[in-house]
Amino acid sequence: MKLANYVCGQWQQGAGGGEALLDPVTGEELARVSSENIDAGAMLEFARRHGGPALRALSYAQRADLLAKVAEVLAANRAEYFRISLLNSGATEADASFDVDGAIYTMKYYAKAGRALGDGAMLKEGAVVALSKTGAFLGQHFLMPRQGAAVFINAFNFPAWGFCEKAAPAWLSGVPVVVKPASATAWLTQRMVEDVVKAQILPEGALSILCGAARDLLQHVREEDVICFTGSAQTGMRIRSHPNVLARSVRVNIEADSINSTILGPDGAPGSDVFDLLVKEVVREMTLKTGQKCTAIRRILVPRAQLKAVGDAIAAKLASVKVGNPRNPEVKIGPVVNKAQQAACLKGIAQLKNECTVVFGGDDNFQPIDADAQRAAFVQPTLLACNDGLSAGAVHDVEVFGPAATLVAYDSTGDLIALARRGLGSLVGSIFSNDAPFVEQTVLGIGDLHGRVLVVDSSVGAQHTGHGNVVPSCLHGGPGRAGGGEEAAGLRALLFYHQRMVVQGPSARIADLAARCTDAALLYV
Amino acid sequence: MKLANYVCGQWQQGAGGGEALLDPVTGEELARVSSENIDAGAMLEFARRHGGPALRALSYAQRADLLAKVAEVLAANRAEYFRISLLNSGATEADASFDVDGAIYTMKYYAKAGRALGDGAMLKEGAVVALSKTGAFLGQHFLMPRQGAAVFINAFNFPAWGFCEKAAPAWLSGVPVVVKPASATAWLTQRMVEDVVKAQILPEGALSILCGAARDLLQHVREEDVICFTGSAQTGMRIRSHPNVLARSVRVNIEADSINSTILGPDGAPGSDVFDLLVKEVVREMTLKTGQKCTAIRRILVPRAQLKAVGDAIAAKLASVKVGNPRNPEVKIGPVVNKAQQAACLKGIAQLKNECTVVFGGDDNFQPIDADAQRAAFVQPTLLACNDGLSAGAVHDVEVFGPAATLVAYDSTGDLIALARRGLGSLVGSIFSNDAPFVEQTVLGIGDLHGRVLVVDSSVGAQHTGHGNVVPSCLHGGPGRAGGGEEAAGLRALLFYHQRMVVQGPSARIADLAARCTDAALLYV
Repeated sequence: MKLANYVCGQWQQGAGGGEALLDPVTGEELARVSSENIDAGAMLEFARRHGGPALRALSYAQRADLLAKVAEVLAANRAEYFRISLLNSGATEADASFDVDGAIYTMKYYAKAGRALGDGAMLKEGAVVALSKTGAFLGQHFLMPRQGAAVFINAFNFPAWGFCEKAAPAWLSGVPVVVKPASATAWLTQRMVEDVVKAQILPEGALSILCGAARDLLQHVREEDVICFTGSAQTGMRIRSHPNVLARSVRVNIEADSINSTILGPDGAPGSDVFDLLVKEVVREMTLKTGQKCTAIRRILVPRAQLKAVGDAIAAKLASVKVGNPRNPEVKIGPVVNKAQQAACLKGIAQLKNECTVVFGGDDNFQPIDADAQRAAFVQPTLLACNDGLSAGAVHDVEVFGPAATLVAYDSTGDLIALARRGLGSLVGSIFSNDAPFVEQTVLGIGDLHGRVLVVDSSVGAQHTGHGNVVPSCLHGGPGRAGGGEEAAGLRALLFYHQRMVVQGPSARIADLAARCTDAALLYV
Repeated sequence: MKLANYVCGQWQQGAGGGEALLDPVTGEELARVSSENIDAGAMLEFARRHGGPALRALSYAQRADLLAKVAEVLAANRAEYFRISLLNSGATEADASFDVDGAIYTMKYYAKAGRALGDGAMLKEGAVVALSKTGAFLGQHFLMPRQGAAVFINAFNFPAWGFCEKAAPAWLSGVPVVVKPASATAWLTQRMVEDVVKAQILPEGALSILCGAARDLLQHVREEDVICFTGSAQTGMRIRSHPNVLARSVRVNIEADSINSTILGPDGAPGSDVFDLLVKEVVREMTLKTGQKCTAIRRILVPRAQLKAVGDAIAAKLASVKVGNPRNPEVKIGPVVNKAQQAACLKGIAQLKNECTVVFGGDDNFQPIDADAQRAAFVQPTLLACNDGLSAGAVHDVEVFGPAATLVAYDSTGDLIALARRGLGSLVGSIFSNDAPFVEQTVLGIGDLHGRVLVVDSSVGAQHTGHGNVVPSCLHGGPGRAGGGEEAAGLRALLFYHQRMVVQGPSARIADLAARCTDAALLYV
């Protein structure tokens, strides 16, 4: 089975043999993808000429209705997406739900939030600016939908959610979508696109998919287009420094993996609420999607006195978590996505071992349940510990994109802040503490290097939304190593797909334009 | 005279002979600059460690007061800045005022606007997000001042304004400033920095200046820093693709020259208000600062029937404008900044001549008043005309950064929009018309590829703020060729120096943080 590309309103087969998509448990080939001989330039131009104008002929509320219909179609095909997730990603039921249900929830969220933007065709931002004494000449800032295409270059770990969380705000903004999923797990995205296309919800050109290698895709982007990338920092750099992207100042959003930390407050003694809540969250983050989340906890910063107790508690829980073939209902941790990722994880763990002790796991020859370790891509859940975090290197720089995390001892709040900042920009940090001054000092100390900080205390208990969960109402992205991007954040996500500009002109002309607008203040409600 | 660098709280001389700053009229050497052996890494670290924390210990309103004091110091030394502008930039009184008075006005504007941000230490953005049914766990977005330095790499044409319009929002945000002016006209910026430092208004480390080559400056920027560049697209690309900037996802704002257009509406017959207003504005844009403004009119898009009449009217006015040594009070147009810029202008005009006819000027051997054409860097004001704009290349791609512009005929509103968009992203476009539906269609057709659109009709007359004027209350920047940046736009300029992030946590902790905040909605007032 070779997955077709949807380009210029037609399903097109790429040429040649293409790349194989494998079952990470059995190593069996499931499908192939190829973008060979597909005309990426024509694909983008079709999206700009047909998809964009048709979407922008609708109001925000009308486009929100399209999102609701897309969500319905996806919900109707949920079982099939779970099946593909199991086959192609080795996903447990919980892992598949995190991706697929997350995708549907996000699409519904934007459908609902988008309706509030009403009948406007563009956004009016802020107050009128007086530019003449008589009031005859005024300024008004607007956010105008970009007349280009949105190119999504997505990561393998969220084939469903990664597509929907980007597509929803793009469509809502009136910008057509071109998605290029990561080849390894392209099947699920391709299937979702197929279902949406079949349902004939969106105008022609509003959705295209290119499966396989990106080839010359970036050679064809233009000034009006935007690129939204999720994946490794290395690929992110290649996109940002592509000569055509640079020459045209193409707007790029990058969300790269980061070395996120969770923090136990000085009050977090064993037996305390916050101690237990942190331990539970670390285990959840190491388990869910086999640790393959860009937001997952990589560093666990704890008071030096608690290093052993936290390590013991996490290790005890990990010891009872079954790792193996997700077809076995007892299994909670499946494989990583493929042998290459497995090798990268094992290499990363080896690097960490150079400056850490192993608290749990770390066995390269570990035996998964109901799977052949040679064919399958398993990594044993591994907890490490580092006594001298301020002198450590790999702990803060090497991301093991799998079920691994490192405990790091801290001695003072100042040291703690310095350690967290050694991540050099993270998507998320979390703080488990009932000590209000400590929480405030830490948030203020690390906040500017994080996209999101989660604080849990006894008053919140289990009601928090999770260290690694991206909720569509709150910002996802982060500075520095995390790529410098901004996604989600409710309707703020629409900012990326609009051009901020100002019109200076006669009051009557400003009024004409304002009459076509929704107030941009609604993006922050 | 070698201009000193202000680095790590000390005046430091660069080593070696350095680069010479010349009088563009006489070719005489005025001063030298050198950054050789200056430790750029130490400079940035000093700014981050001393300047940043001291600035952030103040509230927005307190920092606004600092801006007011800086503006006072600059105003007190205005005459000296005019003298340097004449010597080093060949500026007429009007040219010097545009830069120097613009700088002082902008600093005062931000001082006043910043006071409205009050006692907050950071900004709270938008409504609280409900994240649990009980209300115990909430989300709140914040804009936190970045704990890095702001690096300004500035253009030669605005040594005063370019420094102040960037420094004001940075300081107001609590971010220390490191300015590297263009070598050719670094004297004025250096003198302003000297005056501000002497006045001891700002905390140590809040202001540094590096004169001369940037050398390894970009090698030392970090995740927390921001870079704000104004200048050529080519240098902008070099900054964006610098390995250290890429690897750390350093936030970069680029404002590059663009091929801006002005548009005469279909109603703009000779004798009409809008015809006269457009002609006057084109001549002003070609005259002021000898056309060396990134916002200057480069293309004049007019109905085909008016091509000749508009050309004749502009040519008639240009014929009476005196070009030469700005020490002669009759002179309205001085030299360009140096022989290299002169050569670039003449080369650009030659390229335009390949597809245009010359309406006025264009003489390489033209004789300026009171100056030796061989030593001086003069370019004759030159008006060209292009009959087939849709097939033209250089007209839309070659920027002559001097007193030159090209008339382009259009046949329909559709063609006009296509022609304006051929600029591939502009800082500004202007429309002179009383035809309301035409104006609306054109604004909507070109708005997403422009940072600013200025509309002038009979009701506005001479009250408009000017095609090329950047007012601090309105956005400056533009997509594509213009670099994709955003500056000014009132307090929106502070966004660049803040990190948007979200805190998810107990209601009490969110309240603690919110109590330290000013509402970000004030950025748009």
